[in-house]
Amino acid sequence: MNNRVTPIGVSNRHVHLKEESIQTLFWKDSLDIMKDLSQPGQFAAHQLVDILGPEKIPGNESSRKIITWVRVLWPARSADQVELSITDARTIGIKNIPIRLSGVLSETPGIIMRGPAGQIEIQEWVIIAHKHLHIEPRRAQERGLSNWENIVVGTQNQERGGLLTNVIVRVSPEAALDLHIDTDEGNAFNITTWQEGIILQEHEILDYIKKHNII
Amino acid sequence: MNNRVTPIGVSNRHVHLKEESIQTLFWKDSLDIMKDLSQPGQFAAHQLVDILGPEKIPGNESSRKIITWVRVLWPARSADQVELSITDARTIGIKNIPIRLSGVLSETPGIIMRGPAGQIEIQEWVIIAHKHLHIEPRRAQERGLSNWENIVVGTQNQERGGLLTNVIVRVSPEAALDLHIDTDEGNAFNITTWQEGIILQEHEILDYIKKHNII
Repeated sequence: MNNRVTPIGVSNRHVHLKEESIQTLFWKDSLDIMKDLSQPGQFAAHQLVDILGPEKIPGNESSRKIITWVRVLWPARSADQVELSITDARTIGIKNIPIRLSGVLSETPGIIMRGPAGQIEIQEWVIIAHKHLHIEPRRAQERGLSNWENIVVGTQNQERGGLLTNVIVRVSPEAALDLHIDTDEGNAFNITTWQEGIILQEHEILDYIKKHNII
Repeated sequence: MNNRVTPIGVSNRHVHLKEESIQTLFWKDSLDIMKDLSQPGQFAAHQLVDILGPEKIPGNESSRKIITWVRVLWPARSADQVELSITDARTIGIKNIPIRLSGVLSETPGIIMRGPAGQIEIQEWVIIAHKHLHIEPRRAQERGLSNWENIVVGTQNQERGGLLTNVIVRVSPEAALDLHIDTDEGNAFNITTWQEGIILQEHEILDYIKKHNII
């Protein structure tokens, strides 16, 4: 892989849970691996939750809209966090979810999660994920990328190719190179996981869109 | 509105029907207006259909996945056409829907539609809409835009602002200025109907993304 290329990972809706919530929802201390994620030590678990939006008719629990089978990720975190697409948020009727990097959780709405062993309600920490590039320090240095930098990445998909702008670089020793977008962004650019993007320098952007016939 | 601005319309999933199909599905000759669309003479009807994807278990009708309450548009057309987002296509299990301009319908999959009076199955003409700008000839001439031209449009939405690339210009005497994207694209750029975009010349693109802090 050359110096300008990154794999792209499309993140479906998912939840991160603290240990106590895993106990309540699944009556377990840890989760069972279904599939490794691109980031080292992280996996998608066999465990799933249903998530429920706000009541449409106050006092009527059954008026909540629901999304079933939402994947839980491992490892456990210090706080519960739910990551949805804007499409998902509309589906269950949650309004004004901010677009945030994972872990930046102030002024966010809450949600109800149901597992096979119980239910929890969180008062905040539902977010739409901000697109971001995971990268390890050595590789970031080689490529001249710094933590929190904003970058532009070119995608090549015929009718829906384009530019992912405002991608935030997150440098961490625990990272592996991967650009994370959500399903709305993946569908808007007709991208599926493992396609590649090209990290563009400012002076390359105009040539890129002319060459790929997207202007 | 200055010479570079266009309203943006986010198109939800919808169907166009021929007169015969309106008869079969609704037992009516015409449809009832719910809301005018941006294009003159067109409206979203009160009438809705359910759409059904392919059978997951062959021979088992009830294994089809369904999206309920899909809006029908007026006027009637010479052929039935269904426009979905990629999210919708995944929901009902239709694969390989091409991204097309409306009316360009060769090599497209089919679908079942159900209305209150009956059901029809079409063998083709389900598409994902290609993003496009409707514009009338006088205004296109003023702006130096020609039919089938590819343009780039800037959007301004904080964390999800960016560039809509590969927008196809469709000049027609029946048009009114409006840039049409689907719900996946709307959500990826955090755009809702009636927000505005800026049609950019090549030499303006780099300045635009620097000015709006999306690089």
